[in-house]
Amino acid sequence: MRVLGIDPGLRALGWGVIDAEGSRLRHVANGICTSVGDVLSERLLSLHEQLTDVLRRYAPQMAAVEQTFVNKDGAGTLKLGQARGIAMLVPAQFGLAVGEYAPNSIKKTVVGVGHADKRQVMHMVKMQLPGAEIAGPDAADALAIAICHARHLGTAALKVRA
Amino acid sequence: MRVLGIDPGLRALGWGVIDAEGSRLRHVANGICTSVGDVLSERLLSLHEQLTDVLRRYAPQMAAVEQTFVNKDGAGTLKLGQARGIAMLVPAQFGLAVGEYAPNSIKKTVVGVGHADKRQVMHMVKMQLPGAEIAGPDAADALAIAICHARHLGTAALKVRA
Repeated sequence: MRVLGIDPGLRALGWGVIDAEGSRLRHVANGICTSVGDVLSERLLSLHEQLTDVLRRYAPQMAAVEQTFVNKDGAGTLKLGQARGIAMLVPAQFGLAVGEYAPNSIKKTVVGVGHADKRQVMHMVKMQLPGAEIAGPDAADALAIAICHARHLGTAALKVRA
Repeated sequence: MRVLGIDPGLRALGWGVIDAEGSRLRHVANGICTSVGDVLSERLLSLHEQLTDVLRRYAPQMAAVEQTFVNKDGAGTLKLGQARGIAMLVPAQFGLAVGEYAPNSIKKTVVGVGHADKRQVMHMVKMQLPGAEIAGPDAADALAIAICHARHLGTAALKVRA
């Protein structure tokens, strides 16, 4: 099963695609969609086009997006929300169910602890996807989300079978 | 010139279309896109499809979206941000520039004061668009945004000519 993970952000939106067969994972691709410019609508359109291209190219069957950490910075939360709207929309336009995982849950699944830093996430993602060249921390986070989704789906499938 | 106004919201997204010729305004259509269900990605997809249909049907040449009021409710801001992402994206997908106006600026343009309530906005929108049947307060707000955009564009055009 092919899984897409997305780490939403307006300036940089990380994505990662893996193949999961039972507990075996294989890296497919990862990258970062960037949006520049002063006009918000054009930045969102640019993210939409780049992410649509990722789905066309790699045809994932499942998708998951990081649950955004809501902080006291209202303007920042709003910006992130707008990018997250695009991150949720595009897989839905391809008919995919979109899972959501809290950052702590992703880290716990991938690193083993809920409060791992970005360096640890990058390290454990590389361990679990040998040979993957990772475009940057946002892409590593996106691959971590894909791994988390694959692991949770695996567990759910086992539970159903039991 | 045909102008689309959008009042973004996840549960109810108001829209309104007007024709503006100089200072003369004419109502074209208005309505509310609603999204229901538990799954966020499907709700966003549903809003995207409904709003896309509005743009296909009425072919506006300009669009404007209300600038969201960022409050202390982080979760609410995030939800609104996600819906706003869709509201900004769809006109951009049709090649339109998307204006943004703060609620106070819209009310000041349409009602004359920055702190008008929804009843006053509805009343003044009906005054300026005689004969319009308005689908509800969210649609009235969207028409107010369209009126605000038309008025500002008119002023900008006059300034350019002067």
